[in-house]
Amino acid sequence: VSDSVGEVPARRGRPGHDRAAVLQRAIELFNRQGYDATSMGDLGRELGVTKSAIYHHVSSKEHLLAEALDQALDGLTAAVTEARDASAGTSAYARLRELVGHSVQVLVTHQSAVTLLLRVRGNSPVELAALERRRWIDDQIADLVAEAMAEGSLRDDLSPQLVSRLLFGMVNSLVEWYRSDGPVDATELSAAVCRLAFEGLERPLRSARPQES
Amino acid sequence: VSDSVGEVPARRGRPGHDRAAVLQRAIELFNRQGYDATSMGDLGRELGVTKSAIYHHVSSKEHLLAEALDQALDGLTAAVTEARDASAGTSAYARLRELVGHSVQVLVTHQSAVTLLLRVRGNSPVELAALERRRWIDDQIADLVAEAMAEGSLRDDLSPQLVSRLLFGMVNSLVEWYRSDGPVDATELSAAVCRLAFEGLERPLRSARPQES
Repeated sequence: VSDSVGEVPARRGRPGHDRAAVLQRAIELFNRQGYDATSMGDLGRELGVTKSAIYHHVSSKEHLLAEALDQALDGLTAAVTEARDASAGTSAYARLRELVGHSVQVLVTHQSAVTLLLRVRGNSPVELAALERRRWIDDQIADLVAEAMAEGSLRDDLSPQLVSRLLFGMVNSLVEWYRSDGPVDATELSAAVCRLAFEGLERPLRSARPQES
Repeated sequence: VSDSVGEVPARRGRPGHDRAAVLQRAIELFNRQGYDATSMGDLGRELGVTKSAIYHHVSSKEHLLAEALDQALDGLTAAVTEARDASAGTSAYARLRELVGHSVQVLVTHQSAVTLLLRVRGNSPVELAALERRRWIDDQIADLVAEAMAEGSLRDDLSPQLVSRLLFGMVNSLVEWYRSDGPVDATELSAAVCRLAFEGLERPLRSARPQES
């Protein structure tokens, strides 16, 4: 039928199912050939529907981009908010370490949406709004790093901004190579990133510091 | 005159000077609007010369891309080769740490060419050759990480491939935000990346390990 989308058959009773599949295919197409270079006609061809049928599912290309970026940003914002608002008595160190691990999980779960987010350069109001949300997240992370330095659990010979950029530069770089069907699962990956970042690559000393509770 | 390029005047006795300036402007344009989306006409407009005059300087767009990618790859290859062939008696740990610092310097020096390299996806023979050179570099790095684990100076509870990907993911992420006119100079940046990666973010213990020579 004319409104079926690729291999995902349109089901009149479940429009949400189609919608999520359309969004996912759009994100992958944007990542493959660039958002600006992708037309609604291209997306129609990708989905196996006519350009006019695509508007049955989607109001505009920019609306799809906004939804895709929100998918990535909502996950990261939730992780940051949780780290910021954790119950009193949890050290900033523990909350930062938890945030790094949680961010790796978000990134693996929404890898293609995060890939798209990381390529946004601010060419439209939707992209500018996404960059604004990224900046808010970056500021929250730098604040948490500064708090962990102030409580004495992180080295303070580097600036909080530099530390948060290097730390999340490492986290974000995962989108370039991570394969969820590869040898490393998301839980292992989270743990590996945290060990490298917090404990470092040098062989741990025998009499290590007491474990964080 | 018709063969002057932007603000860089053509000097008959110094063709190499023009050539380097054209390459640099082309790299910046490719990064800004994407290599595939950039035509020789766009490049001519960027340089303030006609599309036909551009061929006075450049044989083809793909040739420019190849030169740009070689600029980035030659620097990284030299750093890796030096680390691999360092004189006997230098630990793998010291050579790896030197390589990380040296890579940061290459990245800062050739930031726009490295940015272009990191976006290459293999859409042409030139891009495939660049990916092949990147893979060689990645393999050499993973081998050096494995050597440092074998000599006992690096933690061995993570795989060498994972460590080298996370380590150089952090290094490569610098291209996204580093500004050479910002508050952190290249030498400080190198040292910061090495401290974070090798020693970790946790506050160093008082009785630290002996310094590497």
